[in-house]
Amino acid sequence: MKKAEIISVGTELLMGQVANTDAQYISAKLPEAGIGVFYHTVVGDNPGRVGEAVSRAFGRSDVIILTGGLGPTQDDLTKKAVADMFGLELKRDEETVRKIEEYFLKIGKKMVPANLSQADFPERSVILENSCGTAPGCAILFKNDVPKAVAPDKADKIIALLPGPPREMQTMFDNELMPMLKAMSKLVFKSRYYSIIGVPESEVEKRLIDKIDGCVNPTVATYVGKGYVSVRVSYSGEDAEEVKKTLRKYDTLMKKRFGDDLFSTRGESVQENFLRRMKERGLSFSCAESCTGGLVAELVTSVPGASSVIRAGIVTYSNLAKIELLGVPSETIGAFGAVSAETAAEMAKGAAMKCCTDVAVSVTGNAGPGVMEGKEQGLVYIAAWYKGELEVGEFRFGGGRENVRTRAAVTALDMARRLVLRKTPEKKPSI
Amino acid sequence: MKKAEIISVGTELLMGQVANTDAQYISAKLPEAGIGVFYHTVVGDNPGRVGEAVSRAFGRSDVIILTGGLGPTQDDLTKKAVADMFGLELKRDEETVRKIEEYFLKIGKKMVPANLSQADFPERSVILENSCGTAPGCAILFKNDVPKAVAPDKADKIIALLPGPPREMQTMFDNELMPMLKAMSKLVFKSRYYSIIGVPESEVEKRLIDKIDGCVNPTVATYVGKGYVSVRVSYSGEDAEEVKKTLRKYDTLMKKRFGDDLFSTRGESVQENFLRRMKERGLSFSCAESCTGGLVAELVTSVPGASSVIRAGIVTYSNLAKIELLGVPSETIGAFGAVSAETAAEMAKGAAMKCCTDVAVSVTGNAGPGVMEGKEQGLVYIAAWYKGELEVGEFRFGGGRENVRTRAAVTALDMARRLVLRKTPEKKPSI
Repeated sequence: MKKAEIISVGTELLMGQVANTDAQYISAKLPEAGIGVFYHTVVGDNPGRVGEAVSRAFGRSDVIILTGGLGPTQDDLTKKAVADMFGLELKRDEETVRKIEEYFLKIGKKMVPANLSQADFPERSVILENSCGTAPGCAILFKNDVPKAVAPDKADKIIALLPGPPREMQTMFDNELMPMLKAMSKLVFKSRYYSIIGVPESEVEKRLIDKIDGCVNPTVATYVGKGYVSVRVSYSGEDAEEVKKTLRKYDTLMKKRFGDDLFSTRGESVQENFLRRMKERGLSFSCAESCTGGLVAELVTSVPGASSVIRAGIVTYSNLAKIELLGVPSETIGAFGAVSAETAAEMAKGAAMKCCTDVAVSVTGNAGPGVMEGKEQGLVYIAAWYKGELEVGEFRFGGGRENVRTRAAVTALDMARRLVLRKTPEKKPSI
Repeated sequence: MKKAEIISVGTELLMGQVANTDAQYISAKLPEAGIGVFYHTVVGDNPGRVGEAVSRAFGRSDVIILTGGLGPTQDDLTKKAVADMFGLELKRDEETVRKIEEYFLKIGKKMVPANLSQADFPERSVILENSCGTAPGCAILFKNDVPKAVAPDKADKIIALLPGPPREMQTMFDNELMPMLKAMSKLVFKSRYYSIIGVPESEVEKRLIDKIDGCVNPTVATYVGKGYVSVRVSYSGEDAEEVKKTLRKYDTLMKKRFGDDLFSTRGESVQENFLRRMKERGLSFSCAESCTGGLVAELVTSVPGASSVIRAGIVTYSNLAKIELLGVPSETIGAFGAVSAETAAEMAKGAAMKCCTDVAVSVTGNAGPGVMEGKEQGLVYIAAWYKGELEVGEFRFGGGRENVRTRAAVTALDMARRLVLRKTPEKKPSI
């Protein structure tokens, strides 16, 4: 297996202005090419420290990816540092010059000579196109530690220089660099992603511990999504068909271990999955929210194509709004309080009636901070409505205000999912 | 100025499961202690590579902070690696043993011997309390490169070991480590944060370029918040009063250069600032949203104490919902379309009327992807209502669906802020 390391160049990282998401993005992708990541390094815009980091990396790794330090404001720092290290000249690429000139003509700005330095690349390097910005990247391939203009599958080492801005970096990495790395490593690597709700991450890990501990291929990893737990199963091999078959077996295993809590075998978020199921059944949706303050509606509408499902959402932060906008009887609020199962039920029903939808959910609770009308922080009532069927649940969510709101919002969508699935079961379950 | 570097230990970082937010958090804070950050390094859970990284850091830096690799699952990797490096024994701390036993008694679980290894620390180290978890951290102070149990202001180097989970790490860093670092560096460091809306980051930078380029103390940096631009001005000196006075001068400068686009000199987000101004004036608020799908309400209610201001929010994703829930005349939608200045105006008015609030905003537009009813992606109409006064704006926001929604939501709150400020100007402007 090829060893990789990532060197990120940028004072803004050392100042803590941004997290190193470039290193995260690349690290998550490299296993797909059968390449393991062993180091991340961050250095400032300083040629000496960049050179030193690259030199150390070259001694211990096969794949060295630099991000940042391209472009005129940083004086094309990394290109010079890397070229110097291997005694390579910087050569101007006429095709790139033409593109830069075209770009400045198009935006109607005057080009300064410094801009042209973006067209200079270490000799013998492959230019990586930047389809989202002006600074192209480049890659130097090595054979027996000597820079060589060989095909990627003939190379044994590579140093790639990518821009720092995440969108530019990601596009260039996916389209230009990744195919070269896959050619170099000759392995097929695939992952399947499972989404689970209602089970804490520690418990998910516990139930899969026999597949996690000491397992090298396939590997199983859990991580936390927005209100749910995601499980990634990854496997690499030389035969694509065999890789696919091995991974597919995990569908049965996951279903057996997590039952209905496993809501997606496609890596969907709670809202993506919810929306797809509603669409498949042609159902319309509305919501009534108190403590989540619009988060349920926001989650659902953040998915493109939500408009064919969600008709409306009503955020009722005050009691008066609950009564007037949702038709909750003032007696219900008077007798049980705004944070109660009874009010939650009336809110869901009210949303379904006022918005004329098949499905509706409601959330009312205390997101905190502090106790509210005698209800402790984290106490939330959630109701789901499906064509006249009503279900209400009481929940106690831990963590701060933000966590309570997120957990409450996804739990509301999940409750509606379970209710709908129970009433309209699938012959061949699609998860 | 002391030189720092951060070494993060964790395979989950090298797998790209999480971004290195620990390094970001620490890097953003260290300047407050007058300490500069020169390197970040990430290594896996491997004693050899951890030891090598610490050894290199010790040769070139004064402050070395490790995160991760504490706790029983990682076999207390970093403590052993660091102790070995300096020939220090690991000694059991009885006070910590007592706390761990108490913890397991409380949660009713059986303690295994591995848990007790958390009570072992390199001799001569200071124990850093973990108020959010079980694994304490520790710090080793050095005098002339020799580990010494001296007071922080007498030490010239320090190696600190912090846990990896962000909440535990942050609390320990702030409460336990930061005071030691400040004592070591003997400098006072302060920052002021300014929030600007309606001016792109590149333009903010341009207008401040004389204060950014080549400036070492104070330093000025810009970064992007949720729909606004934040400017940090930082200054360090030996006299607290002088530091404060120097920074205060920037209030006038920023006001002169950004006028009403500068909405906060306290580093507030758009929604925090909006809510504070509404509260100061005792105004009530509601919103009517189409393409933002609940994001305006969600932003406002994400701030604790929002309930005294926001009464309700109505998300009307369908035309029928706009007509029935907000009272938008069907003729208006018929004549001008759902995405129009006329519909936006009726929506804001409708929200104010239906929810009986002083202030209301509305958003209707096409967040994309693709063209909708002949309206291109990014075209958004926003209206603000203040006690009968109505204002409507047409906007074209770039970027993808998420960016259009965020920009639209904060612009709506900003429009209401400007309208209210114009109608109720302040004698002594509070920004």
